[in-house]
Amino acid sequence: MRRFLVTGHRATTTGDFRLDDIAGGAGRLDVLVRCVNSAFFLSHSLRDDVELYLVLQGGDDAPKTLRFIGSELRYLNPDERSTSSLIRNALLRKIGEEEVRSSPGIYVSRRSFRQVVDMLAEISELAYLKEDGEDIRGLEVPCDISFVLGDDRDLTPEEEEVLLSHHPRTVCLGPRSLHADHCLIVVHNELDRRQC
Amino acid sequence: MRRFLVTGHRATTTGDFRLDDIAGGAGRLDVLVRCVNSAFFLSHSLRDDVELYLVLQGGDDAPKTLRFIGSELRYLNPDERSTSSLIRNALLRKIGEEEVRSSPGIYVSRRSFRQVVDMLAEISELAYLKEDGEDIRGLEVPCDISFVLGDDRDLTPEEEEVLLSHHPRTVCLGPRSLHADHCLIVVHNELDRRQC
Repeated sequence: MRRFLVTGHRATTTGDFRLDDIAGGAGRLDVLVRCVNSAFFLSHSLRDDVELYLVLQGGDDAPKTLRFIGSELRYLNPDERSTSSLIRNALLRKIGEEEVRSSPGIYVSRRSFRQVVDMLAEISELAYLKEDGEDIRGLEVPCDISFVLGDDRDLTPEEEEVLLSHHPRTVCLGPRSLHADHCLIVVHNELDRRQC
Repeated sequence: MRRFLVTGHRATTTGDFRLDDIAGGAGRLDVLVRCVNSAFFLSHSLRDDVELYLVLQGGDDAPKTLRFIGSELRYLNPDERSTSSLIRNALLRKIGEEEVRSSPGIYVSRRSFRQVVDMLAEISELAYLKEDGEDIRGLEVPCDISFVLGDDRDLTPEEEEVLLSHHPRTVCLGPRSLHADHCLIVVHNELDRRQC
């Protein structure tokens, strides 16, 4: 299983944003929406061996974590607006202690970045996507792996401390610094080639 | 210079579409919009050594070609809606025989797929992105190269005939069939590594 955790440092946690303002009023939710597209879409199907965690840390109800399960996803289209609508529906759900299913393959909870990282560390190896890491092409990694990265901003020192406490591999994807959603595409291509 | 030509088989050529319906009424313009993002965005800058050609073949005013020049681009943001707005502005311009500049780095003309391919063949080597091609990783290609691909549909037999008349390399990107915008990311990563 491939897993990705993308932290949305100021992405809204309330469902009152406008679908035509996801890059502004919703706290760069557009970055995370594009990560959903990158995580799951193949030319004529969805990747069913992928899970994506979006940790939303902006707005009045932070934190919230959206969990996308490739094998269960329905109603997902590649355009930003329709994915934003699915996310808004999830953020409008009332949630307490337990994770809640919003739509097929999309779950919402009050998990924090630390809680998600700790959970992923228990079930898989962790990889920190970072410009000064080891090149993924030369690296042996297990097929069961979780990649952690920031949205349009790097992990904060506090987030980095949480992640580094689990001794992740630090992995880079090439000589240029890429958008988060583009990083997911490069990771997928590399692991596809290894038949992971 | 890296160049990409993406053909939008039913993408609208008139500027009367709604920005919240680019995946429907605008003939899957969303696919092409995402290609703009993939072609140009780096983490904190735009790629200034890239040109993108979108050949729009849908609607009542077909064909039209949008030409994006990385070194001249201004006002480009990564979200789909704002890029769609720039495209709509270009499609609202009155054009005759000559190409017209719509906004910095974005030009619109009445060039057809054949005209664009013929022009690119004069100034660079051509590469046809296709699942049964040679793997890009094992392939020596010049840095001055133009990649040609379809939107959410393969090239038509007629388009393929035009392209093959120029004897392009046929190039694949790995074992999975990818969305057009994802293909651009993988090509970029490979050529970035070669310092092209």
